[in-house]
Amino acid sequence: MRYPQDQPPVLSLTPGPVPVYPEVLHALSRRVPYDYDLPYQAKYERIVRKLQQVMRLSTRPLILQGEPVLGLEAAAASLIDAQDTVLILASGPYGEGFGGWARRYSRDVLTLEAPDDQAIDPQAVADMLKRNPAISVVSVCHHETPCGTINPINAIGAVVAEHGALLIVDAVSSFGGMNTHPEDCQAAIYVTGPAKCLGTPPALTLLGISTRAWAKMKANPSAPRGSVLSILDWEDAGEAGKRFPFTTSIADINALDAALDLYLGEGPEAVWARHDLTARTFRAGIETLGLSIWAASEAYASPTTTVVRLPEGISEADLLSDLRDRYGLLVSGGRGPTAGRAIRVAHMGPAAHPLHALAALSALAGSLNRLGFQCSAGKAIEAALQVVDLTT
Amino acid sequence: MRYPQDQPPVLSLTPGPVPVYPEVLHALSRRVPYDYDLPYQAKYERIVRKLQQVMRLSTRPLILQGEPVLGLEAAAASLIDAQDTVLILASGPYGEGFGGWARRYSRDVLTLEAPDDQAIDPQAVADMLKRNPAISVVSVCHHETPCGTINPINAIGAVVAEHGALLIVDAVSSFGGMNTHPEDCQAAIYVTGPAKCLGTPPALTLLGISTRAWAKMKANPSAPRGSVLSILDWEDAGEAGKRFPFTTSIADINALDAALDLYLGEGPEAVWARHDLTARTFRAGIETLGLSIWAASEAYASPTTTVVRLPEGISEADLLSDLRDRYGLLVSGGRGPTAGRAIRVAHMGPAAHPLHALAALSALAGSLNRLGFQCSAGKAIEAALQVVDLTT
Amino acid sequence: MRYPQDQPPVLSLTPGPVPVYPEVLHALSRRVPYDYDLPYQAKYERIVRKLQQVMRLSTRPLILQGEPVLGLEAAAASLIDAQDTVLILASGPYGEGFGGWARRYSRDVLTLEAPDDQAIDPQAVADMLKRNPAISVVSVCHHETPCGTINPINAIGAVVAEHGALLIVDAVSSFGGMNTHPEDCQAAIYVTGPAKCLGTPPALTLLGISTRAWAKMKANPSAPRGSVLSILDWEDAGEAGKRFPFTTSIADINALDAALDLYLGEGPEAVWARHDLTARTFRAGIETLGLSIWAASEAYASPTTTVVRLPEGISEADLLSDLRDRYGLLVSGGRGPTAGRAIRVAHMGPAAHPLHALAALSALAGSLNRLGFQCSAGKAIEAALQVVDLTT
Amino acid sequence: MRYPQDQPPVLSLTPGPVPVYPEVLHALSRRVPYDYDLPYQAKYERIVRKLQQVMRLSTRPLILQGEPVLGLEAAAASLIDAQDTVLILASGPYGEGFGGWARRYSRDVLTLEAPDDQAIDPQAVADMLKRNPAISVVSVCHHETPCGTINPINAIGAVVAEHGALLIVDAVSSFGGMNTHPEDCQAAIYVTGPAKCLGTPPALTLLGISTRAWAKMKANPSAPRGSVLSILDWEDAGEAGKRFPFTTSIADINALDAALDLYLGEGPEAVWARHDLTARTFRAGIETLGLSIWAASEAYASPTTTVVRLPEGISEADLLSDLRDRYGLLVSGGRGPTAGRAIRVAHMGPAAHPLHALAALSALAGSLNRLGFQCSAGKAIEAALQVVDLTT
Repeated sequence: MRYPQDQPPVLSLTPGPVPVYPEVLHALSRRVPYDYDLPYQAKYERIVRKLQQVMRLSTRPLILQGEPVLGLEAAAASLIDAQDTVLILASGPYGEGFGGWARRYSRDVLTLEAPDDQAIDPQAVADMLKRNPAISVVSVCHHETPCGTINPINAIGAVVAEHGALLIVDAVSSFGGMNTHPEDCQAAIYVTGPAKCLGTPPALTLLGISTRAWAKMKANPSAPRGSVLSILDWEDAGEAGKRFPFTTSIADINALDAALDLYLGEGPEAVWARHDLTARTFRAGIETLGLSIWAASEAYASPTTTVVRLPEGISEADLLSDLRDRYGLLVSGGRGPTAGRAIRVAHMGPAAHPLHALAALSALAGSLNRLGFQCSAGKAIEAALQVVDLTT
Repeated sequence: MRYPQDQPPVLSLTPGPVPVYPEVLHALSRRVPYDYDLPYQAKYERIVRKLQQVMRLSTRPLILQGEPVLGLEAAAASLIDAQDTVLILASGPYGEGFGGWARRYSRDVLTLEAPDDQAIDPQAVADMLKRNPAISVVSVCHHETPCGTINPINAIGAVVAEHGALLIVDAVSSFGGMNTHPEDCQAAIYVTGPAKCLGTPPALTLLGISTRAWAKMKANPSAPRGSVLSILDWEDAGEAGKRFPFTTSIADINALDAALDLYLGEGPEAVWARHDLTARTFRAGIETLGLSIWAASEAYASPTTTVVRLPEGISEADLLSDLRDRYGLLVSGGRGPTAGRAIRVAHMGPAAHPLHALAALSALAGSLNRLGFQCSAGKAIEAALQVVDLTT
Repeated sequence: MRYPQDQPPVLSLTPGPVPVYPEVLHALSRRVPYDYDLPYQAKYERIVRKLQQVMRLSTRPLILQGEPVLGLEAAAASLIDAQDTVLILASGPYGEGFGGWARRYSRDVLTLEAPDDQAIDPQAVADMLKRNPAISVVSVCHHETPCGTINPINAIGAVVAEHGALLIVDAVSSFGGMNTHPEDCQAAIYVTGPAKCLGTPPALTLLGISTRAWAKMKANPSAPRGSVLSILDWEDAGEAGKRFPFTTSIADINALDAALDLYLGEGPEAVWARHDLTARTFRAGIETLGLSIWAASEAYASPTTTVVRLPEGISEADLLSDLRDRYGLLVSGGRGPTAGRAIRVAHMGPAAHPLHALAALSALAGSLNRLGFQCSAGKAIEAALQVVDLTT
Repeated sequence: MRYPQDQPPVLSLTPGPVPVYPEVLHALSRRVPYDYDLPYQAKYERIVRKLQQVMRLSTRPLILQGEPVLGLEAAAASLIDAQDTVLILASGPYGEGFGGWARRYSRDVLTLEAPDDQAIDPQAVADMLKRNPAISVVSVCHHETPCGTINPINAIGAVVAEHGALLIVDAVSSFGGMNTHPEDCQAAIYVTGPAKCLGTPPALTLLGISTRAWAKMKANPSAPRGSVLSILDWEDAGEAGKRFPFTTSIADINALDAALDLYLGEGPEAVWARHDLTARTFRAGIETLGLSIWAASEAYASPTTTVVRLPEGISEADLLSDLRDRYGLLVSGGRGPTAGRAIRVAHMGPAAHPLHALAALSALAGSLNRLGFQCSAGKAIEAALQVVDLTT
């Protein structure tokens, strides 16, 4: 038997859109109320407060009505002005890509690069800041999903704070799957979304904004106002008696509500542990198969996405196709530097279970052997099981 | 008994968000696939083609991932450049509001106003264009929801086309509820959304774009690219082998799919007839109650929202509150020029049924009498029933 | 315009299946767990306890896996044995119909009849019992839905209790819509279901069983065991460590759970008041239209279904058809004695709102006039509105 | 990390209730129409016709409103009369259990037993029939889920037909997961349900009834009529203009509709191949782990449930608990003869995927080693993968 292309896969381990928690899928079809009716206003405010608890913020979080590229572009547009010198920390395509937005709003944009299989070194950031005292805004991508690497944003945040600059953090594909929060890294603007590790469909941005960032944005005459790109317009949206700048994406707000409840219900620490164990289980098997992850060191390896280098002679397209046809397993190809050179297996939200890692390892070994790369499924499974075994 | 504020209303006749067709609500919780998996790409393309049929377009329509304020702002940003002279047709706050976006991209912005209870006169547009031959872009709002008035966009479109200018049409709250399509009014960019008369939750923009508009946008160096505001980025999104610029709002796309099926299944002409009959039924009752609609003439009255002037001495807040508390009927207050001076009763999508108009008239009469305005519910119902009776 | 037959109606006021509360519809698609997994067992037990609260029982209620005809047949089969003399109280086809089951299990079955537009007189029951001291089981139908009449079961229950007999009550279409509970009427077995006034789809029976009834059933050698008709098999089903006799209808159990939450959330007294006001509003209009209800006196009129006598010359089929075609209003025809002679308009669960009664009155007047019965919609609406007005 | 008991499992491989196809879960919350409204009657009839196609019947199938224990009891009650001599074929508790119902309706009940790890031998049936020419009804359970064994019902059916007796087949947990249909085995009454291999929640019975069986039931004066146990009452239910004997379980009917569409859409042969491959993959691993299946021979092994004998010293409760706590894997314990001596891993409907078998084998090996039974997960996975590999 083969799994036909026009049927949904049996198991989807893709780095977003994730398969969505059943409870979240279910919540999407709750009533769609009129947004100026009192029950909706009150509900929206309750969700904002729940989100504040989830993000562990002392300030009020914001929900923007678009997936996180909206939040990232809006952060650049709102925070950066022509007077700013911006430092782009780039260890992959997402970190680097932010530079495109930064250059629209400032002429002084510097870049500190790290190889795409490594992480940004906080000391290098400190050195760069010392050499360029004018740097007023720094941007960093926490989790380079194309590479499966994690940058040490808490340490970077400390360095940036000491320098007095403002930090914009892209934590889109890490938040909710590991221990990271806006104030842990002293972010000015922390951009994430619920459609990765929180397990909703894509449609919303979640923002954590520091008091200093609010002040800077309000003082910035070119910060968007009366625009979809505006952050300022949404400052008090949903508070009693305040209008929304425009209509919210109500079904997606319902989904967010359910996702936050699931996250708090399971317990954030338990959710992170589940993601971490799944990734470690999977990596143990990968190594035993004779494969390597993209990250040069396990120290940078993401708990929410494992990027596996393709062995010599194995084509990305053939491997993805065999996994889907034979086993109904859907994973993702590489992107940017890893395109054609790696596959990406995500461990996000409802997909982050060691049992799924075991299934994926079996299938991966089956497909690799079939495509000509000799490897031992059995040893990989035993190595992976040992990781689960040793977990307290 | 009273209906408590924290319970959903019995009947919601609000001008969007509308209560949503049950089948659409249901479709929101369909599977959320990975957007680069083949089944989703194929499905997205099928939806685009279905939308093309619904919009009666010869060109490919676009779906933007945000409610129509995104589409309107994006249209201004993409089409208007510094060389353009823009004419804003303003018979209400939405038409006028577009000027704010236009002025960002062009210094030469003229306005032709009509009183907020009237419609734009195509002859006045023709005169204005003759006096200002440099006008290259014209904008118009089809349905001023705050006022319940309809502008004659097909006639305006003919005048604008003859002049050789490009027309931007805001048909957000009319499309799907009456006979209007992008090419009927020769629109360069026609902006609408599925969350009004098509009965989905708010989250998407639907765009009809003429070949000339595509050429102008592509030639416009300041048209957004690599931005949430970009139209150009989405030109071929969803076509086989093409990437999406960013992740689509999958649950809302599922809802759109169901809404298009419902619209085609019922038959566009039947849907429009239903909206029209509902509005006429309601207006007959309103008149008999001794009330008047905001529109100076029935000729401009919208088939999708009736704006009812408040009689002397009746407060908007008291009336809305009594309707909701006593009958569980939710309608909307005025907005802009009608704020505090009118209520708005929408006939959109699942709410557009004469039976709902009859219920609303009964409740309205009940509340008005209670608040001190003497009127005859009985005569209103009889006048309204006569409209239904006389329908073939 | 006309509403085509193959489209769902705009408003359904039928005496079950009712349109179902949106929240209940939604709950139907919750996860379907394995019934021997701990979370399901615990959940089932929680639902039983919630049901006990809703039914105001001192004993544990039972859920049977079939709509209430199962419960009624099971009650007869379990409680009645060959030694019993059974008295059937029959004021309509449902009360009378129970006799069919009773005669299977006992040869001594007596019947006390009341005309189908009246209620059983408790004094007549007392007389009958006095004349027939052997009567050991009495059955009564609380709400004769075909006739829209209510029997005084609390008073009947007192008489039966004094006599020392056991009372079987069919409260299928009244429970949840008015103030009635098993112990209020001293029922031995009280049979109801959630698919009428609680607003679920049909699939389950709810039973309240007295301690004395349990003892009699256990002592009855012919009471079904190892059968779908068994009550005994389910005595402790769902309790920790106890197996279900067979698999429960899990999706319907999920729906019941949501319906109980809604009922308790709105407040039983508020729910009853809503049903009562809706029925009174509707009856005031009916009378003003020159029509009469089936019940000979308002004192017996049901708050959950109004049965309206057809005027001379009006055909049931024509009226139902015109209401559906013209207005999208679905009501029910007569049944048994009322078949072809009346229409039935239900006020159950999500349909029990005065606003719906007003809509139905308008449509009914419209259709009747069209079919040749002269009546004043206007006066009917005014009379109906007055009922709502006078409600505190 | 551990999976808490009050959370749903990650993967449920239980022999019903199965986890339910997502599309079926989704269909449960479709509109609930009034059952006498035309659209529902027409829809019900369409579903019956679709079911006829799925069951490959020349007669009209019946849907009973209760899970298949209702269908089995109703078949006994309707078909068997006091003149019948009944032969019970019993190779496990379900086959034997039918005897309980048969003895209610006939005094002459014979039993032919096979050991619970074997299948009924058609030759033994032939011999029994020859020795007992009075046998007029034979019953057989196709798939003894407690034991994971399959009886050769087509061969048995041929023998029974030759004898001239009527065959009652319990195909509850096999139909839809393998190549079996009522007329393939010449069944008089073939009882199944959609809640196993068709992947719906439990609530309905599906019946295939031969013309001869209809004649016998109609001639049987004791066949239930006016009862939940009646088959006769439902003969033409749903046909145009015919009433249902009582209200159908509408939400479950909606689910059945979706399940039939899925089955036909995937293609029956593809569905059976998927079940078969999953079971063979799993059994290959089981054997390599040093375990054995309950069935004495692979020839009898069910493609829809694998029953695995517990090795010496391993407790069922400990194993089930470790699988759920460590891996979130839910499987079932033994039942009847296998209680405490085996676990049951089902491959039914949405659970029948080789990828799930691989995951289950990994987890099972992990748990067994932890509980003290030495086995090689690696070798098991390699043996299992080989089965998938060798599949064309």
